[in-house]
Amino acid sequence: MGVRCVAIRACGGGKIDPGVPRMAVHACGAAAAVVALLSAAIALQWSPLHAVLQRALSLHTAHATKDMENLFQLVRNIVPALTSKKHKGQDGRIGIVGGCQEYTGAPYFAGISALKVGADLTHVFCAREAAPVIKSYSPELIVHPVLDSSNAVEEVEKWLPRLHALVVGPGLGRDELLLNNVRGILESTKARDIPVVIDADGLWLVAQQPALIHSYHKAILTPNHVEFSRLWEAVLSSPMDSKDLRGSTLKLSQALGNITVVQKGEQDLISNGQQVLVCNQEGSSRRCGGQGDLLSGSLGVMVHWALRAGPEKTNGSSPLLVAAWGACTLTRECNRQAFQKYGRSTTTTDMITEVGTAFSRLFTT
Amino acid sequence: MGVRCVAIRACGGGKIDPGVPRMAVHACGAAAAVVALLSAAIALQWSPLHAVLQRALSLHTAHATKDMENLFQLVRNIVPALTSKKHKGQDGRIGIVGGCQEYTGAPYFAGISALKVGADLTHVFCAREAAPVIKSYSPELIVHPVLDSSNAVEEVEKWLPRLHALVVGPGLGRDELLLNNVRGILESTKARDIPVVIDADGLWLVAQQPALIHSYHKAILTPNHVEFSRLWEAVLSSPMDSKDLRGSTLKLSQALGNITVVQKGEQDLISNGQQVLVCNQEGSSRRCGGQGDLLSGSLGVMVHWALRAGPEKTNGSSPLLVAAWGACTLTRECNRQAFQKYGRSTTTTDMITEVGTAFSRLFTT
Repeated sequence: MGVRCVAIRACGGGKIDPGVPRMAVHACGAAAAVVALLSAAIALQWSPLHAVLQRALSLHTAHATKDMENLFQLVRNIVPALTSKKHKGQDGRIGIVGGCQEYTGAPYFAGISALKVGADLTHVFCAREAAPVIKSYSPELIVHPVLDSSNAVEEVEKWLPRLHALVVGPGLGRDELLLNNVRGILESTKARDIPVVIDADGLWLVAQQPALIHSYHKAILTPNHVEFSRLWEAVLSSPMDSKDLRGSTLKLSQALGNITVVQKGEQDLISNGQQVLVCNQEGSSRRCGGQGDLLSGSLGVMVHWALRAGPEKTNGSSPLLVAAWGACTLTRECNRQAFQKYGRSTTTTDMITEVGTAFSRLFTT
Repeated sequence: MGVRCVAIRACGGGKIDPGVPRMAVHACGAAAAVVALLSAAIALQWSPLHAVLQRALSLHTAHATKDMENLFQLVRNIVPALTSKKHKGQDGRIGIVGGCQEYTGAPYFAGISALKVGADLTHVFCAREAAPVIKSYSPELIVHPVLDSSNAVEEVEKWLPRLHALVVGPGLGRDELLLNNVRGILESTKARDIPVVIDADGLWLVAQQPALIHSYHKAILTPNHVEFSRLWEAVLSSPMDSKDLRGSTLKLSQALGNITVVQKGEQDLISNGQQVLVCNQEGSSRRCGGQGDLLSGSLGVMVHWALRAGPEKTNGSSPLLVAAWGACTLTRECNRQAFQKYGRSTTTTDMITEVGTAFSRLFTT
């Protein structure tokens, strides 16, 4: 299967000693006692974050394969059993917020990916003009043409009690009316304690107003390189160290109140301000538009599963980290499988066709 | 593979002695010294262009296979490596300008072909009425319903800084409002030095107003027989010699200020006013509508790749000529492969399905 994954338990606890520079982080964790002691000692004295992480990484390299196996097992633990006792909806009712004048493919990709990963129902909330087009891509999606209406927040709120997770951003665009409505939807989502995955122009909104999701521990941001840089500048007001992407991911998560951040790239880096997980499952070098929507839609379902399973199923690790690692791993495997068949001509539609077999190969015991 | 291609280096330099009849052209080039001397001598005295080219052709026939191999290698040189270091968009963000009340298939064919050749993103700029239909063909395309709006030029200008190449004409039609907006878009494209492929009714616009693209060295025109004749009459105001299509292609290019002209036909003839390349890759006799859109979309990506690679990768040849020869070769191979499967019932959709394997067969070493 060509799997190459490394899991780094860089640090934990997340409480920062006020007498220690902000970049320094305590490290702990039962499985990483040596790293914890070393890192804490370093952190308390002088070490910049990247040095702490480098040490953690080198100490952990020998355990990489074991960690990877553990992570696969943790993802398997959160996948709900398919049993004949269940009713429609119990394995996931996922909402996608996006779709506007220009963009209609992205919310479709996110919605159909959620279904193919295993959600029972997906609802897309989009601008009126986008709705017939998104509907036309697939009869599987339920599409609500409400996002540019004057009562958009109320229209979405009607559905929130039935939704297990929300994915905000695919094909959202930057129209002020839509962004303003999404502000209200995010507030309402937080008030109901519903997990939310934020991608694409949803991240643009967060960069304008980080307080919207600051410290909301059921939020996961999934920025690519450009989006990550924009968030960094908005939140940290300092130049980003692009040589230390792991450290940057950890630091951005901390600056946003320890919410989960997935920095997508050559390898995907996932942090909740306490740990950094690295996903470098083999994918391909094809970078066609839409792959990020496959990730965000998959993650919408998996974060619901992970939170429902709870930390006893994730061996004490954050359910959100496990869900994010699972969705990244799945997306990369879909990319690999599609690329093997179609090479450079691979598009996101080809990748979505692979979701079923990729999921089964990775996560079915 | 049944490849039958001839590359003709008819003449070079392109500067015409004012004392010599306009049709006569100097011939040169290290690999064609004999041809150069002979042709120059003839040209300076009495020979019409076609005689010069005929001699060049007969002298070069022995080298045809070698030249063909060289051309394949030059195309391979411009194809960007797929590496994990790249971000989405770097292998091509291509704009398609077209799509109106009558025509919606053409801009889709061009856009999806660009993606399947290897572009990361394609944007279609079309009339409002055409947008939902074009969107519904594929969620892979980003479609902007702006081309018949009063601020169409500004709407497209917003995106130009992010686009690597523009394809103007597929499904454009001849509505005066749209054509007028396309005039403004072309001016803006030139001002930003963005390469532009012009086909279909984009060529009708050029025939009305050749100054629009005269001497713009990043323009490529892709006329079929009828469109070529119309351009000829508009620019040269004399009857075209239909027995000497190579010479006509060279001459039309020169008359348009040495921009690249691809005359599509039984064999495709490509000239920048200095060289004439011939592509007679085996295709089929099936002539269903839409094949030209596959060519223009493919060429949009390949011209971006060729210009980025630069003349050092094309061994001193014009990157635009190499891109055009590559796109013609690919289109004909798609036609051949589809025809083998579907015969007379072949349509452009069948050809587009072949892009991945055709590209791989021709250009992957």
